[in-house]
Amino acid sequence: MTDRLIIFDTTLRDGEQSPGASMTRDEKLRIARQLEKMRVDVIEAGFAAASNGDFESVRAVAETIRESTVCSLARASENDIRRAGEAIRPAASGRIHTFIATSPIHMEKKLRMSPDQVVEQAIKAIGWARQYTEDVEFSAEDAVRSDIDFLVRVFTEVIKAGAKTINVPDTVGYSVPAQWAERMRTLIERVPGADRVVWSTHCHNDLGMAVANSLAAVMAGARQVECTINGLGERAGNASLEEVVMSVRTRRDVFGVDTRIDASQIVPASRLVSTITGYPVQPNKAIVGANAFAHESGIHQDGVLKHRETYEIMRAEDVGWNTNKLVLGKHSGRNAFRARLTELGIVVESEEQLNVAFAAFKELADKKHEIFDEDIQALMSDEAVTPEDELYKLVAMSVRSETGEPPQAAVTLTAGGREVRVESQGSGPVDASFRAIESVARSGSELLLYSVNAITTGTDAQGEVTVRLALGGRIVNGQGADTDIIVASAKAYINALNKLQGAQKLNPQGDESPI
Amino acid sequence: MTDRLIIFDTTLRDGEQSPGASMTRDEKLRIARQLEKMRVDVIEAGFAAASNGDFESVRAVAETIRESTVCSLARASENDIRRAGEAIRPAASGRIHTFIATSPIHMEKKLRMSPDQVVEQAIKAIGWARQYTEDVEFSAEDAVRSDIDFLVRVFTEVIKAGAKTINVPDTVGYSVPAQWAERMRTLIERVPGADRVVWSTHCHNDLGMAVANSLAAVMAGARQVECTINGLGERAGNASLEEVVMSVRTRRDVFGVDTRIDASQIVPASRLVSTITGYPVQPNKAIVGANAFAHESGIHQDGVLKHRETYEIMRAEDVGWNTNKLVLGKHSGRNAFRARLTELGIVVESEEQLNVAFAAFKELADKKHEIFDEDIQALMSDEAVTPEDELYKLVAMSVRSETGEPPQAAVTLTAGGREVRVESQGSGPVDASFRAIESVARSGSELLLYSVNAITTGTDAQGEVTVRLALGGRIVNGQGADTDIIVASAKAYINALNKLQGAQKLNPQGDESPI
Repeated sequence: MTDRLIIFDTTLRDGEQSPGASMTRDEKLRIARQLEKMRVDVIEAGFAAASNGDFESVRAVAETIRESTVCSLARASENDIRRAGEAIRPAASGRIHTFIATSPIHMEKKLRMSPDQVVEQAIKAIGWARQYTEDVEFSAEDAVRSDIDFLVRVFTEVIKAGAKTINVPDTVGYSVPAQWAERMRTLIERVPGADRVVWSTHCHNDLGMAVANSLAAVMAGARQVECTINGLGERAGNASLEEVVMSVRTRRDVFGVDTRIDASQIVPASRLVSTITGYPVQPNKAIVGANAFAHESGIHQDGVLKHRETYEIMRAEDVGWNTNKLVLGKHSGRNAFRARLTELGIVVESEEQLNVAFAAFKELADKKHEIFDEDIQALMSDEAVTPEDELYKLVAMSVRSETGEPPQAAVTLTAGGREVRVESQGSGPVDASFRAIESVARSGSELLLYSVNAITTGTDAQGEVTVRLALGGRIVNGQGADTDIIVASAKAYINALNKLQGAQKLNPQGDESPI
Repeated sequence: MTDRLIIFDTTLRDGEQSPGASMTRDEKLRIARQLEKMRVDVIEAGFAAASNGDFESVRAVAETIRESTVCSLARASENDIRRAGEAIRPAASGRIHTFIATSPIHMEKKLRMSPDQVVEQAIKAIGWARQYTEDVEFSAEDAVRSDIDFLVRVFTEVIKAGAKTINVPDTVGYSVPAQWAERMRTLIERVPGADRVVWSTHCHNDLGMAVANSLAAVMAGARQVECTINGLGERAGNASLEEVVMSVRTRRDVFGVDTRIDASQIVPASRLVSTITGYPVQPNKAIVGANAFAHESGIHQDGVLKHRETYEIMRAEDVGWNTNKLVLGKHSGRNAFRARLTELGIVVESEEQLNVAFAAFKELADKKHEIFDEDIQALMSDEAVTPEDELYKLVAMSVRSETGEPPQAAVTLTAGGREVRVESQGSGPVDASFRAIESVARSGSELLLYSVNAITTGTDAQGEVTVRLALGGRIVNGQGADTDIIVASAKAYINALNKLQGAQKLNPQGDESPI
């Protein structure tokens, strides 16, 4: 058996199904580039048939990414698979991931199909998919609650039909490692042709054991793990990529496998996904949490370092910590700025956009002494909506707040090119400025989330604000960064409004895949 | 073998060792009361010998808690154990938890003791501890890297000496479930007298498998799990109490054990610990994350609910979600407010303090239409420092911020009873107000963390700000809540300054236990 473990990242598909984590095409592209840089084997870029927006996102990722396989999810229907096939056509290496439910409850209640019909449909799906690519993956949705004999039958048939990867998902996240390993072992033993395919697992984290379950499956013979950055995903999320990768690397003595992942890109990827989705990473999160490598007691760390013979010890640098370099300041020039953007994997599409970004950088450098990588990333996510896409733009604002009086905000913004100045009161200055902006936009949207992160430390830290708005079933995240938290908030609100405006589709209802 | 799993919570000891999570005595008491309400079996309240502050905290918890066993950690030295014994003396049920390292590297480098000396010291420690209580727990620090024969020897001797609980810690958090279960099974098989004690496990989460490792140990015979709320703890933290408890409850078919925990108290406990420590809980955290029960697709949830025969399904209500009741508003009276405080487990010590809190509540109700439980909790954590302890107090403030000009803050505060008004500029209004306050306090402290949470949703949400300050090795968290984020920030800063002032000891250096 090979000792290479394939890392299948589904941040852009299952991760995006987290409430409010939907991403624009450009945001997906930024994450996909980072995943490629990290040397992820397979990037599941979306669910092409879910909507035109999803289709365009998958296609854009397929056009851009050269080093990773780009995959689209598809139900086992001819239309879904056609859309997936078309979306991945530009890919250097493209995969179709088709699924059908195999548990009694799902077959009966959702599909209204008999087991025989499910087998037949699965076989057909593989055939349709192979018209587009030889790289076909099949998932038995809700495998955890499926009859083992039926699973053996379905997998036997789809392998005969040409599936190359067989994925066994724990859709409800209630498995325990020993059981999950047993299920994987039984399948690999009993399915004829098992040795011709890659066995895969996809675990949810409802009881906090997604990573342990995934790794138990690896010990039982799985050679692909489906996972997400920061463990993002529906409910309590998926197995976290960083924990899976660093577990097999650190405990090669136990697992006997390794991945191609460039682990030094893990922390930058974590930050990027957190920024774009507005999902914070808690400090005590393994690997990517701010404290993951903060040892309180010296002897402890010393002990760890002196015991290399037992484990391949993780160091903070290995996973990309301590790359928070002081890179630029007030006197840095345009070329230094451009070079740093390139190093950070940020693509500037035109000289005009670079000018805008550089001006913003200079403005920040006036207010803030030291400019860190995170500052630049925040600055650029501010600029992620290019000028021509912006319906609303912040021109200026002023805020007054005095104990005993309601806070007041005056906001000047351009709306479709026309400059407007509005004032409003509110329960706080942030509320007042949102009300002022809303009095122009009249979006009628609902504020779902308002969150603030200090990006760097110190009193002159930039604050980065995420605002999540909902309107008619669509959910968007807006980001804004500034040393002034009120200004950052207004920028984030405006960014969200612009996204609501520009969104073709941001949160498809009902068509999400519950693998 | 009994089917009862003992839940040993170490939020107040190992959890407190998270950088910046140190708590005041009053904060520890609030958490201890919540743990008791949740029916935790054993509360590890601290490490009494670490400092006078720690001693006082353990003692205060021992005096207050009646339904849970109160435990103090102690190294295997006569002095440590004496301090622990004195601190737990007022407890209805008290335990001493003594430890010594058993791995070659720790014995050699840290203890500079031979294995024989370690065994001898461990035996003595049990004897000293038994002078105070029959409930003695022994931990073999770094058991994961200790020689198994030596562990058998040590455990055999401490059981003979009278230890009632034997704890096996994975100090470095690098274990995997199958291996960890194997170690526990071997120990229970080989140690004479194993059936007379409770076997315990204490796992760290560096690779994301603390819960799976703990539960693997339970399957191998452990009947106590050491864990923390929200998985708080050094580095990536400890096994999370909520995941352990809900895993064994949900998968009783696999584990065959249960706990006494009142699970409906889990979410309130999670919020309380998060508020006090300033450690946020990420939305995709299992059980206690905001999304843990947010299913995107209807069929999915339906499928889960219809499958009760396989699992004992978790519902959000079971763990205390949906208890965010609209309780009070503008017209609520003093008695309704007092009654709600009692229900929330918040103890008001005097009529005067109730008056102060009620006035703050009324002020909030003027600004905010609906007052939720979280609002009240935030309000009360604001009031947690009682008037007589406060060196600094915010009287009034005003903030002006205008595009193109540096933001200005004017703050009026009392410093030791004297009223002062100060002004300052800053890179943002928060920075400006911190600078203004600091110009009075001249604490010279360093700002380690500034974080904001919107406590409830909606544009009139209260913002809750945590400010973490460091000064000469001491670290404190200040909290402030207000509908105005700048005011909340100033309150949090002042709260932190007051704590710095009042702290006897907040972050002991070097004496932390690295179990």
